[in-house]
Amino acid sequence: MTELNKTDIAAKVRKFVADELIPLEQEFLLNGFLSVSETLEEKRQLAKKEGLWTPYLPKSDGGLGLSLTQFAVVSEELGRTPLGHYALNCQAPDIGNIELISLHGTGDQKHAFLEPLIKGEIRSCFAMTEPENPGSNPVLLDTSAHRDGKDYVITGHKWFTSSADGASFAVIMAITNPEADSKYHRASMVLVPMNTQGLEIVGNIPVMGDTGEDYASHSELRFTDCRVPDENLLGPEGEGFRLAQERLGPGRIHHCMRWIGICERAFDLMCRHASRRRITSDSLLADQAIVKAWIAESRAEINSARLMVLDAAGKVERRGTAGARVEISLIKFYVANILQKVLDRAIQTHGALGMTDYTPLAYWYRHERAARIYDGPDEVHKLSAAKQILKKYSSK
Amino acid sequence: MTELNKTDIAAKVRKFVADELIPLEQEFLLNGFLSVSETLEEKRQLAKKEGLWTPYLPKSDGGLGLSLTQFAVVSEELGRTPLGHYALNCQAPDIGNIELISLHGTGDQKHAFLEPLIKGEIRSCFAMTEPENPGSNPVLLDTSAHRDGKDYVITGHKWFTSSADGASFAVIMAITNPEADSKYHRASMVLVPMNTQGLEIVGNIPVMGDTGEDYASHSELRFTDCRVPDENLLGPEGEGFRLAQERLGPGRIHHCMRWIGICERAFDLMCRHASRRRITSDSLLADQAIVKAWIAESRAEINSARLMVLDAAGKVERRGTAGARVEISLIKFYVANILQKVLDRAIQTHGALGMTDYTPLAYWYRHERAARIYDGPDEVHKLSAAKQILKKYSSK
Amino acid sequence: MTELNKTDIAAKVRKFVADELIPLEQEFLLNGFLSVSETLEEKRQLAKKEGLWTPYLPKSDGGLGLSLTQFAVVSEELGRTPLGHYALNCQAPDIGNIELISLHGTGDQKHAFLEPLIKGEIRSCFAMTEPENPGSNPVLLDTSAHRDGKDYVITGHKWFTSSADGASFAVIMAITNPEADSKYHRASMVLVPMNTQGLEIVGNIPVMGDTGEDYASHSELRFTDCRVPDENLLGPEGEGFRLAQERLGPGRIHHCMRWIGICERAFDLMCRHASRRRITSDSLLADQAIVKAWIAESRAEINSARLMVLDAAGKVERRGTAGARVEISLIKFYVANILQKVLDRAIQTHGALGMTDYTPLAYWYRHERAARIYDGPDEVHKLSAAKQILKKYSSK
Amino acid sequence: MTELNKTDIAAKVRKFVADELIPLEQEFLLNGFLSVSETLEEKRQLAKKEGLWTPYLPKSDGGLGLSLTQFAVVSEELGRTPLGHYALNCQAPDIGNIELISLHGTGDQKHAFLEPLIKGEIRSCFAMTEPENPGSNPVLLDTSAHRDGKDYVITGHKWFTSSADGASFAVIMAITNPEADSKYHRASMVLVPMNTQGLEIVGNIPVMGDTGEDYASHSELRFTDCRVPDENLLGPEGEGFRLAQERLGPGRIHHCMRWIGICERAFDLMCRHASRRRITSDSLLADQAIVKAWIAESRAEINSARLMVLDAAGKVERRGTAGARVEISLIKFYVANILQKVLDRAIQTHGALGMTDYTPLAYWYRHERAARIYDGPDEVHKLSAAKQILKKYSSK
Repeated sequence: MTELNKTDIAAKVRKFVADELIPLEQEFLLNGFLSVSETLEEKRQLAKKEGLWTPYLPKSDGGLGLSLTQFAVVSEELGRTPLGHYALNCQAPDIGNIELISLHGTGDQKHAFLEPLIKGEIRSCFAMTEPENPGSNPVLLDTSAHRDGKDYVITGHKWFTSSADGASFAVIMAITNPEADSKYHRASMVLVPMNTQGLEIVGNIPVMGDTGEDYASHSELRFTDCRVPDENLLGPEGEGFRLAQERLGPGRIHHCMRWIGICERAFDLMCRHASRRRITSDSLLADQAIVKAWIAESRAEINSARLMVLDAAGKVERRGTAGARVEISLIKFYVANILQKVLDRAIQTHGALGMTDYTPLAYWYRHERAARIYDGPDEVHKLSAAKQILKKYSSK
Repeated sequence: MTELNKTDIAAKVRKFVADELIPLEQEFLLNGFLSVSETLEEKRQLAKKEGLWTPYLPKSDGGLGLSLTQFAVVSEELGRTPLGHYALNCQAPDIGNIELISLHGTGDQKHAFLEPLIKGEIRSCFAMTEPENPGSNPVLLDTSAHRDGKDYVITGHKWFTSSADGASFAVIMAITNPEADSKYHRASMVLVPMNTQGLEIVGNIPVMGDTGEDYASHSELRFTDCRVPDENLLGPEGEGFRLAQERLGPGRIHHCMRWIGICERAFDLMCRHASRRRITSDSLLADQAIVKAWIAESRAEINSARLMVLDAAGKVERRGTAGARVEISLIKFYVANILQKVLDRAIQTHGALGMTDYTPLAYWYRHERAARIYDGPDEVHKLSAAKQILKKYSSK
Repeated sequence: MTELNKTDIAAKVRKFVADELIPLEQEFLLNGFLSVSETLEEKRQLAKKEGLWTPYLPKSDGGLGLSLTQFAVVSEELGRTPLGHYALNCQAPDIGNIELISLHGTGDQKHAFLEPLIKGEIRSCFAMTEPENPGSNPVLLDTSAHRDGKDYVITGHKWFTSSADGASFAVIMAITNPEADSKYHRASMVLVPMNTQGLEIVGNIPVMGDTGEDYASHSELRFTDCRVPDENLLGPEGEGFRLAQERLGPGRIHHCMRWIGICERAFDLMCRHASRRRITSDSLLADQAIVKAWIAESRAEINSARLMVLDAAGKVERRGTAGARVEISLIKFYVANILQKVLDRAIQTHGALGMTDYTPLAYWYRHERAARIYDGPDEVHKLSAAKQILKKYSSK
Repeated sequence: MTELNKTDIAAKVRKFVADELIPLEQEFLLNGFLSVSETLEEKRQLAKKEGLWTPYLPKSDGGLGLSLTQFAVVSEELGRTPLGHYALNCQAPDIGNIELISLHGTGDQKHAFLEPLIKGEIRSCFAMTEPENPGSNPVLLDTSAHRDGKDYVITGHKWFTSSADGASFAVIMAITNPEADSKYHRASMVLVPMNTQGLEIVGNIPVMGDTGEDYASHSELRFTDCRVPDENLLGPEGEGFRLAQERLGPGRIHHCMRWIGICERAFDLMCRHASRRRITSDSLLADQAIVKAWIAESRAEINSARLMVLDAAGKVERRGTAGARVEISLIKFYVANILQKVLDRAIQTHGALGMTDYTPLAYWYRHERAARIYDGPDEVHKLSAAKQILKKYSSK
């Protein structure tokens, strides 16, 4: 592995994205993930060779030892293409599972699940959301894992389990302690190999017209008397909710970082198209004042989004996730809304072309509509942030 | 054909949509247009039998003789499902072509093209937009049709030719008189059977992740020395621009009417989901004030959109399309934006479910993003309406 | 009184506003209501002479017998200037008090209070809101009127009693039946002459930098053992809440009608200024695309607001206020927000001039900020409308 | 003068604002600037004594030697009250004039004009905007200053000359070189004592219902053969435009900093009121989800505004005003719009109270509507920023 100065990494990643990944985009957008998965595997090997692999991990784990704010800058570069994070093994949900098992896994769990995940030999998924329960209220779960001797027997129904198709194992949330006093101490996390009997992928969910495939998909899972040994418990029993919160905090920042990359790419495409598209015999789209106003507004909003994310990342570094709870909620909805606005303007600027898959704009427009929903919808984060903020104003 | 009181028609159409068409939606959304085309053909026969066929046409042409405002009410009902207009043979682009040929076609043209179209035996398309030219400026066209003896020889490149896949003929816009003094008198409309040599469907354009098929698609066409007899000229030579404007005026109102139907369905789905979805053990999504605010805002906006469309339709009836030019431009952008807002709120209310194709929301969210682009983007209509409005303020 | 064809009235009122009232505006805006009150009195006499007085009243009461929708058109014309409604004796709060006493007053009350009010010899006010209680919750009142023999003795504190300064009497809301089972049956309305001992005008409230004076003011009132004979009870005891609702329904429509007049005037000023203001040596403000977009957006919004108000007024005519409850709530917030947007754009178009009192824009900008607050803030109307709408979706 | 650690200054200023200035606000809001000017003079002496005077100036000039980013933090604290900047002699337009004369004044000019200004013994104004010309296009000026022997003779008409009432001198922009090739080299700046013959304050402009007085006013000025010696020329002849740009760059940042203080105060008032206001017998305004959403949105927006301003200030420090031109344009419109949104929500939260002058919200609501107009309206900054941004996309 080449040694890199941290300040050079972002530039190197930017070049890698431009030279190696963006050329694959069209194939991916038109023909799906499997059509590029082989080439992508070569790019992953190249990324390893160039010393860019898993940059967020400590050097001892084969990463680049980037701090959260340093990773933010890299993640933005990766976000410029839908294939970026995958190519460097920074993609959700694996990045979250890696963090989770690193922190809470036993030695055996790390050996069996974490090591091949870090190397990129396998993929994983995270099964929490259930179709019958609101994702916005993570303590409402029907899936149960009851102990039977040395095993857990899992029964339940999950959906929007991203990247389950082709994954080797799932981290699942299930109720293990239904009688616990606090609703926050009823669920646990369990590691379940995907080939376990009783675990069925019902299918990939049709999302915005696309069932997807392999890594780029969201599955519906059914657990029917699905039995795993109790050593597959991840972290302490009853602590699933806490672990999920721990996992989601940085996960939200990771999403925000990636969204800024999307915004920057969309901005680039918008400016480029406006500067080339002739709309009358002697004027360009870029001469239109309304388009110019969009460009200025987008520039202001993207700048503000980046500053907010870096600020939140800095607070996480200094105070931990819990200490930056308000900031994380704020960027989650704030940046997601900027993302949507910027994509909308970029599409409008492109006209009919913006509706096609000849640019990545339409892909992001439809799939990142979920940015305002996943990991807590806007409204949940607004209410949660306000509740914290109002505490210091309450008159006692 | 059963005689219907005009005031009953909307109710009958609403029932037809609910009983016959909405049950087909899932199949269409998940498996594409061809998966339902056969059943849909039966529904079309049923619609004929129930006297609902081509309601906007005069009775003499087999329609119901509805006025534009009467049709608006029916069209709203049809708009509640993506299959509605097709089932009653009111779908774009055929409805526009029927109007065009009715007004400007020769006897032979009517016999060959119009009659089977009205009966629903064939489909048609309208090829105007070109990839190299801005759709917002309809006088910028590269496609040419030059006379060669008794023929026109067409050369050019079109895209976003909706429903070309499976169509029997195209109405095309091409430059026939490049030397005309006015740029508004250079283009003509020509009828081109799809099986004419030299006309190639390059492919269906991937739009928001979906190349579509048959009626539900947008094609790229290539004309290479494509020869048609000059009796295929539709209307006078050099009058293509005027005919296109004539066609687009009511076309824009038709879109707006349909969008209101989409809005109403989305509103219905939003209220229904909110009223059933439990978010804590003892409260519903509908108890959330933020969701309630969306419902009230959506209700106000949809009501206003409907009133605006009916008002514009009334003006078209009284003054003709040209006399309602400002109103048409106003509703084109105003209703399209309400459509987008209502769909956005409905999806947000549904959470993850809103991202799936288990409701039609995601379909409309992605495909009707084009509502702010096709038939003139928002910005073009704003500038055009303002220009008209400002005329009376200009100081002379 | 000249007889007028109803369709001519609006045109006549428009001319009256333009010729008689708009010329007084500058004086009013720069020097306050009293500076124009004498001239305004002459205009009121002129309005009587021209047969325009109290147009909303039945002919038997000296009005023009306009229906609510007919009055809407007239009211819009009056709304074009801050002095319009006053000049024709249609101004709040008197119009509401006239309606109230007409419906619920005894013969004596009508003689003493209503008749001079209709003639414009006196003014009145309506004292409901209290500084210590949220105006948005009209059952929370501290002011009490307890019976003592043949009298009511009133104690309490009111504010935002519009036009109390110079009024002859107040209609007040006070708790007369604190022990009533239903919180909706505790308050009553009482007629209180302003010169009654124990009723003190603490002062006019400084609103947006302006304490105002006479008709154009909002007062703070203090009732201290203020005694009125029990024949001053207006309507049945305990029915104050119901009467207030009855009064507020049409009151809200009246506001909306007036706001449309303000919008139209602002639109006019915006278009006119843009068409005259040179911004470079060879271009006008009206040539700027962003200004044009504002003009088109404003035109669409104002049109939609008018259609919504006329539609709601029609529903009130056909079904009564209670039957149009949802529509009234919808227009209350919908039109108020359009008002604010249109005024904002008109000011921005005027630049520094928009900030001055050389146009009425700044007056409306600051005083009509209250449009989203008085008679129920936006949020209360949204929640209330949604509650009604959701009823039919509730699963029983 | 007490020495202060720079990190302590903001805290000290915050305390000064809270203890000394906010208690004066009510008097100022209700009775105008002159009613507090004497007390304010004492506060200014106190500020000097406490070592807080002119913090943005170098220590050699009696200031605290704060960098622009350091001053930003202090300026935010001062912005919490309308009296803050004045109390520490950081108020526009004097701060801009101080900077201007410091950079471009002759020794004599500094002695006569700058020194007493820094000490706070006199006030000044800046006369650029003209009623007949758009403020958005600073090269369009009618005021002329033609040389006559050793004098300039000034003729012209200015308005919105802030704080002219009570000022000792004006810095004026006038055309001195009408024949210059470039329109950017026609104007010059001239120092004009207010008591010069031929300079008349026509009056204070009624702005949002308020003509104001003394420091808190905007005047209309008339220059009629107003003669000043040519040594009153500030900077080189023909360089007025360049100097104005130089002055406006930091001026815009100063405004943005101040607006953040306003936002923070409004946010504080909103949270405090919501936490105390009972809206039913057992719930607070702060329990309302819609209010909570406003709080979270405002928090996110204010945070983003502050980060943007600090980022722009840092760029000015590193690259100069010209090098941060895009950033300055972006914050000018971005922060001004956030200011307006936050004030609007704070007022809506306060209900009727928000309309009164019992809080500073209504004052800012009306006077800071100008934030989107003065020093370049939003639209001018958007177009200007976009123009710069698009340069690198232009295809050559």
